[in-house]
Amino acid sequence: MLNHEELQQAVNEIAEEMRARKDRGTVASYIPELAKANADAFGIAIADNHGNVIAAGDADEAFSIQSISKVFTLTLALGKVGDKLWRSVGREPSGSPFNSIVQLESEHGVPRNPFINAGAIVVTDTILSGHQPKEALGEILRFMQFLADDPSIYIDHSVAASEQRTRFRNSALANYMKAFGNLENPVEHVLGVYFHQCAIAMTCRQMAMAGRFLSNSGRNPASNFQVVKPEGSRRINAVMLTCGHYDGSGEFAYRVGLPGKSGVGGGILAIVPGDASICVWSPGLDEAGNSHLGRIALERLAKKMKWSIFGP
Amino acid sequence: MLNHEELQQAVNEIAEEMRARKDRGTVASYIPELAKANADAFGIAIADNHGNVIAAGDADEAFSIQSISKVFTLTLALGKVGDKLWRSVGREPSGSPFNSIVQLESEHGVPRNPFINAGAIVVTDTILSGHQPKEALGEILRFMQFLADDPSIYIDHSVAASEQRTRFRNSALANYMKAFGNLENPVEHVLGVYFHQCAIAMTCRQMAMAGRFLSNSGRNPASNFQVVKPEGSRRINAVMLTCGHYDGSGEFAYRVGLPGKSGVGGGILAIVPGDASICVWSPGLDEAGNSHLGRIALERLAKKMKWSIFGP
Amino acid sequence: MLNHEELQQAVNEIAEEMRARKDRGTVASYIPELAKANADAFGIAIADNHGNVIAAGDADEAFSIQSISKVFTLTLALGKVGDKLWRSVGREPSGSPFNSIVQLESEHGVPRNPFINAGAIVVTDTILSGHQPKEALGEILRFMQFLADDPSIYIDHSVAASEQRTRFRNSALANYMKAFGNLENPVEHVLGVYFHQCAIAMTCRQMAMAGRFLSNSGRNPASNFQVVKPEGSRRINAVMLTCGHYDGSGEFAYRVGLPGKSGVGGGILAIVPGDASICVWSPGLDEAGNSHLGRIALERLAKKMKWSIFGP
Amino acid sequence: MLNHEELQQAVNEIAEEMRARKDRGTVASYIPELAKANADAFGIAIADNHGNVIAAGDADEAFSIQSISKVFTLTLALGKVGDKLWRSVGREPSGSPFNSIVQLESEHGVPRNPFINAGAIVVTDTILSGHQPKEALGEILRFMQFLADDPSIYIDHSVAASEQRTRFRNSALANYMKAFGNLENPVEHVLGVYFHQCAIAMTCRQMAMAGRFLSNSGRNPASNFQVVKPEGSRRINAVMLTCGHYDGSGEFAYRVGLPGKSGVGGGILAIVPGDASICVWSPGLDEAGNSHLGRIALERLAKKMKWSIFGP
Repeated sequence: MLNHEELQQAVNEIAEEMRARKDRGTVASYIPELAKANADAFGIAIADNHGNVIAAGDADEAFSIQSISKVFTLTLALGKVGDKLWRSVGREPSGSPFNSIVQLESEHGVPRNPFINAGAIVVTDTILSGHQPKEALGEILRFMQFLADDPSIYIDHSVAASEQRTRFRNSALANYMKAFGNLENPVEHVLGVYFHQCAIAMTCRQMAMAGRFLSNSGRNPASNFQVVKPEGSRRINAVMLTCGHYDGSGEFAYRVGLPGKSGVGGGILAIVPGDASICVWSPGLDEAGNSHLGRIALERLAKKMKWSIFGP
Repeated sequence: MLNHEELQQAVNEIAEEMRARKDRGTVASYIPELAKANADAFGIAIADNHGNVIAAGDADEAFSIQSISKVFTLTLALGKVGDKLWRSVGREPSGSPFNSIVQLESEHGVPRNPFINAGAIVVTDTILSGHQPKEALGEILRFMQFLADDPSIYIDHSVAASEQRTRFRNSALANYMKAFGNLENPVEHVLGVYFHQCAIAMTCRQMAMAGRFLSNSGRNPASNFQVVKPEGSRRINAVMLTCGHYDGSGEFAYRVGLPGKSGVGGGILAIVPGDASICVWSPGLDEAGNSHLGRIALERLAKKMKWSIFGP
Repeated sequence: MLNHEELQQAVNEIAEEMRARKDRGTVASYIPELAKANADAFGIAIADNHGNVIAAGDADEAFSIQSISKVFTLTLALGKVGDKLWRSVGREPSGSPFNSIVQLESEHGVPRNPFINAGAIVVTDTILSGHQPKEALGEILRFMQFLADDPSIYIDHSVAASEQRTRFRNSALANYMKAFGNLENPVEHVLGVYFHQCAIAMTCRQMAMAGRFLSNSGRNPASNFQVVKPEGSRRINAVMLTCGHYDGSGEFAYRVGLPGKSGVGGGILAIVPGDASICVWSPGLDEAGNSHLGRIALERLAKKMKWSIFGP
Repeated sequence: MLNHEELQQAVNEIAEEMRARKDRGTVASYIPELAKANADAFGIAIADNHGNVIAAGDADEAFSIQSISKVFTLTLALGKVGDKLWRSVGREPSGSPFNSIVQLESEHGVPRNPFINAGAIVVTDTILSGHQPKEALGEILRFMQFLADDPSIYIDHSVAASEQRTRFRNSALANYMKAFGNLENPVEHVLGVYFHQCAIAMTCRQMAMAGRFLSNSGRNPASNFQVVKPEGSRRINAVMLTCGHYDGSGEFAYRVGLPGKSGVGGGILAIVPGDASICVWSPGLDEAGNSHLGRIALERLAKKMKWSIFGP
């Protein structure tokens, strides 16, 4: 069991250091709405398997979760179609940027994993199947609210609209997969849901809460609801570890040693299997597109708490 | 602490199942000497952090360790030059086969990680630095003997000679990196050492012994010798998890959930951080070039023992 | 000056041979409407610079000109914006299939040449600039009618609709270039015009007439209208020679030795600089997507008439 | 027939302009010996099919012919094995730099054409077949002397030695093809011959003489010796047009409109089918690795003389 006070102190120190650092990365600008984020922000929240939440910094400020949403749509899609999902998307690291189209050509429209954009679009297509975009989106949003136990979680429609307006690369990916027969629903429907799921706004606290089932063998520690089987939870963690940070996944595993998923909004969800779910947020990104201070904060925390899954 | 009898029984059952299976993969044939391996063989050995070794099947038959040697040369090179090593080789999954040359062109002669051939050749170049090939090779062999506490470990010179004769693809990789200035020593020297390190012959028991420092925070549990710092051990495990099985690394993480490194000789070294070092061996390979039954045996074992690093 | 009778006899013999051959290639099927073409068809027409037309076989049956349209939109775009066009599209052979997207990534959205799909889409975007799709399309159609001196040339709307329904790969290309800022107009507008220009239906006779300005230093030999400057005509011929047959351009130059442009409808326009414009048509394609018998017929003809630009 | 005086005057003017230009490209430096070339040099020589030679500038200064040698080894290899050569090397433009290795991987060790390094190495392997390197090299040198009717042509051994010392990229290419079984002879033998053929030193006058058979339907106009059949000559010209200037082949066709082959020594051999063989030389290269002033000089000359094969 975690020592509560020790952890709170560690978290406070980290938040303080991160607040003070001059190297803050670069705020994503390719979606205009994201460029408005405050580069000085830093938040952190930890939800342990015993129902405690420890937080510091801007832990209650909402940010755009962006690609972190892919962890949850993957969970939903696996619940829906099970291992059949892996016919449409692989689970190997990509060795290339998050929005690369090259790999799709050589592998005939099957994306390498569910955490690059193309793969996440396929996952969304699976959730959409047989539904209207609105229904599918509602299902995703309610799933987030349920997991975080917080009905106030919302979709930031200005971000979604901004993504729609700058959608061309994702449109290219989706059309390309459609050409290979690897999308069932109309491209515009799938992209509509995808852009809105990425535009969900959450705080660090809410996100740490939402991730708890992954640190607790698939079961929500508060409600005891089994979200996925223990094996499913292990496997989602494994995909996060190998593919969760685009072409910086090896680096994150090497430095932090925890399964994690980042988003270009600057958030990172990290899982300590058996112990806790963590969310950090700082909008400045490193060259691989992951939160610069978020990664450093998690490196500090994992070291101090001996949380690496690769050894104490 | 592990329940000894329970583990022995699990291991016996797994060895029996693997012995009986008809699907055995395909023995590597591109090095003629490797093609002679007995496709029916299966061995397993587990060395825990308390000095116990549990074994079954052909655990005392020597096999060609091939790419598993890369874990140990990486350890040596990091001990020698520290983080400077990462200027010459990355630590990201490659997203392509073990002997691909394409990535080297786009990334200017710097291989993606130390476990693809190009990366391992760079690592060997680092160890060689300032020495004669014979000396460097002696150092590698003595390191293996020391870690396994077994001076009988040897180099199979017929395998090394076979690799020399079919060396063209590795020669291409080495010359290509030399063209980019990313090899210090003469190509022929580096390849000579590389082919011989791959031709080291070991049994499952010896390999499990040699891997113990990685499950024990960098310290040999028998001699208490600190081979690498705890952080170094965690980091090597992380690279094994993300890159240890070529383009099947994601699959291995997803199914087994342990850091591991495979070789085309059919061996796999897997690490249970904090608990044990495991070696399985079966010569038949799957499509990604990893031991087919070896992976299945580890999946069975990790599940039964709740050893996945991604959750119990 | 060409010997009229000799040429007519040569053309008759070739048409007869082609009619009889069993190897007819494979009719394109990815656009359902094209799959309906008659695999037994073969037509040929030659319009010389003195106003004569010699024809044989199904020279008066209309076929879908498809990519041959790219020669004419290139001519229009060069007339409109001149050398500025080459900021948006290159003029190097692509070394890859006609609809590859890989090259676009490494060259930042600038297609290699105006005769691969991506390049032709950029050319159409240039023509569209500041106009409604309907107007741009009307301009292209009238240009074809004017060059061929035949107002009966039309757009086959069932083919255009068929292309719209199977548009995903072209949509991917267009969206991808839009993401790089290399398309000015809305993707749907550009593709709408592009699909319709490809769906223009013409006979061999009409197409041979339309190509005359390219064999006559840019001047229509009948009307004496200067369509492009002599230099422009040489340059379009050069691009046809190096890029006109996708990844079979080297083969066509090697075997036929004339500038040419093929379409998946089975037509090929070939130019004998200073002498004549030729159109052959046979719907079956070879592996590179060019008319199988069309190419063979042109090889026969060029040899017999000593028409190769690479020597008599 | 060419007007002799007019041509001499044109050539003089061009030589004068080129001599005076400030933009001279960049002398190749990757082979140290080549870096010593005089950036101010410019030479031109034209050998017509009637036995005349017209020259200006440094037309009698020897330069390293480098890749221009590939035209002549291709001629020799086609004479030796005929169309069987095309099983080992393609004849399509490459769409990538002269020493790229990427394409070899996707096309299983078969280079795209005989004018990129990998392809030329295969051609040299064909000539070498069954001979000692010394014999093969002697054959190549005597062929050049014979074609140019000048026994003083020699191999610059300091250039060959310089290439040997910086051979790594070519070693990578050769070893890679050997790994695919696409080289018959030992890698070191093939490269030895290859480096020496590239190190042949010739003047513009000698090279223009050597190229005459390509402008004269395969027959040496002086001796009337038929070097290759007319068809062979047309085909070599075709490969020169589509592949002769690496990734600047489209550009050369577009601007000059003649079959040509460049070398990093700054020479270009260009052919006017039916009329003349031209050699220009200026050591500074453009970005695609072709002589900067050489190309401009040929553009001027072709325009003035209406020599483009794409129309007068």
